[in-house]
Amino acid sequence: MEERLRTMEERLQSKSSTEEQLQRENEALKTTVEMMQAKLESLQSIKEARQVAFSASLSASGSGHTGPFSSVESALIYRKVSANFGNGYNSETGIFTAPLKGVYYFRFYAHCHTGNKMAVSLYKNDKVQCSVFSERPWTNGNASNGIVLILEKGDQIYTKLWDESWVYDDPASYTSFGGFLLFPL
Amino acid sequence: MEERLRTMEERLQSKSSTEEQLQRENEALKTTVEMMQAKLESLQSIKEARQVAFSASLSASGSGHTGPFSSVESALIYRKVSANFGNGYNSETGIFTAPLKGVYYFRFYAHCHTGNKMAVSLYKNDKVQCSVFSERPWTNGNASNGIVLILEKGDQIYTKLWDESWVYDDPASYTSFGGFLLFPL
Amino acid sequence: MEERLRTMEERLQSKSSTEEQLQRENEALKTTVEMMQAKLESLQSIKEARQVAFSASLSASGSGHTGPFSSVESALIYRKVSANFGNGYNSETGIFTAPLKGVYYFRFYAHCHTGNKMAVSLYKNDKVQCSVFSERPWTNGNASNGIVLILEKGDQIYTKLWDESWVYDDPASYTSFGGFLLFPL
Repeated sequence: MEERLRTMEERLQSKSSTEEQLQRENEALKTTVEMMQAKLESLQSIKEARQVAFSASLSASGSGHTGPFSSVESALIYRKVSANFGNGYNSETGIFTAPLKGVYYFRFYAHCHTGNKMAVSLYKNDKVQCSVFSERPWTNGNASNGIVLILEKGDQIYTKLWDESWVYDDPASYTSFGGFLLFPL
Repeated sequence: MEERLRTMEERLQSKSSTEEQLQRENEALKTTVEMMQAKLESLQSIKEARQVAFSASLSASGSGHTGPFSSVESALIYRKVSANFGNGYNSETGIFTAPLKGVYYFRFYAHCHTGNKMAVSLYKNDKVQCSVFSERPWTNGNASNGIVLILEKGDQIYTKLWDESWVYDDPASYTSFGGFLLFPL
Repeated sequence: MEERLRTMEERLQSKSSTEEQLQRENEALKTTVEMMQAKLESLQSIKEARQVAFSASLSASGSGHTGPFSSVESALIYRKVSANFGNGYNSETGIFTAPLKGVYYFRFYAHCHTGNKMAVSLYKNDKVQCSVFSERPWTNGNASNGIVLILEKGDQIYTKLWDESWVYDDPASYTSFGGFLLFPL
């Protein structure tokens, strides 16, 4: 009897150390899993956040010239939208508003007929970023430019005609504006 | 003896509750880990799915004009391929076929010599998406356009000359076509 | 007493099998978690590795022509940097050096005034990849080209004027160069 009791006490003792080991292992696993969850969520956010991309061409219907104007106050409005993921682009105003902080790529294409100046600049908020210019081309003017920009949430990107210049568009869509998020910051 | 037995029974009882707690913790960990694995696989799929990008220029060798044709039936075939990840682009037909549903960016550049019309449109399936046009430029015509498009798997993107128009290319590669997946849907 | 001892021995026996099961479960969980960590790290690397994007226009200040030169040895240097994530672009040399192996997109825009030739090529190391060309345009020359390229770490991308040709830039930024990583390989 005494012998059996001693054996059991020893076995109980050994179980205690096994249990402690299991508890330590579980603690370690829980810590690891929590760290992984945080990383996963940060990665998950890339997938969703990256979905910002738009492009539009000037004429939704019909054909015609835009400009020339003697004093240009507002953005060129590209009305025929081919894509607008993330709803950054507003086809009533011509302005793209960054839905999140990140690095973006923008580009625009301008087209005109003979006989006048074609000049368009791309703006970030109120500052010119890049431009195209074609002084009274022999026949058609065709020009484009593009830029990589770091935007804060809410920054506004748009294009604007210079004074006394014009662009042309019809259903074939020559004059267009677009951009997309490269990566969030 | 009676005392030792009672102590052991109490210790056994306490172990039971420790074990139950360990089992509950393990169940919770298993559930968490399974959820994380599902998320991980979905994220893993981004990495692989995103690898779609191509570009090509018209002439694989030699120099010369393509066009003018009186009735244009088929796509411009860009034979000098610089990249074709995802094998979407077919350099025998000039057609890019979307390997997966997603949002893509495409752009093309056209170049011609003096004396004729340069006009090229980019098509999604059988619909014009955007174009370039240069009527008998004084010297060279240079024009480009680009667009963000939402494609279903199998949608076809290609460029086509207009009737009675031409493009030029030589080993310097002026006339080109390309695109890439921005994100899968 | 004998009865209580036997009961305890049975309970101890049952605990042993519970413990063994818990240990097996923990081993399985540890293996799963280790595999997931490896996958997570590989995914994490996408997020960081993807942050390569730059663009720059020719003139940091003032306006003027670059060229014509009779023998062009070095890259066009775009000094007004709008973004340079990943520090691939060097605004002292005009050269972008790939910080990692991957698939990249590059594009450039060239602009000139009337009366001379505008010709620019984009190089990968010492090989021309694509070009623009405008022979003595009637008024302004505007042209662009772009390409998707597979780069090894250290590959160099830059643009170069042809002999006897020029580009123009001023604070409106017409002549520019840029690119970004599409995905690492």
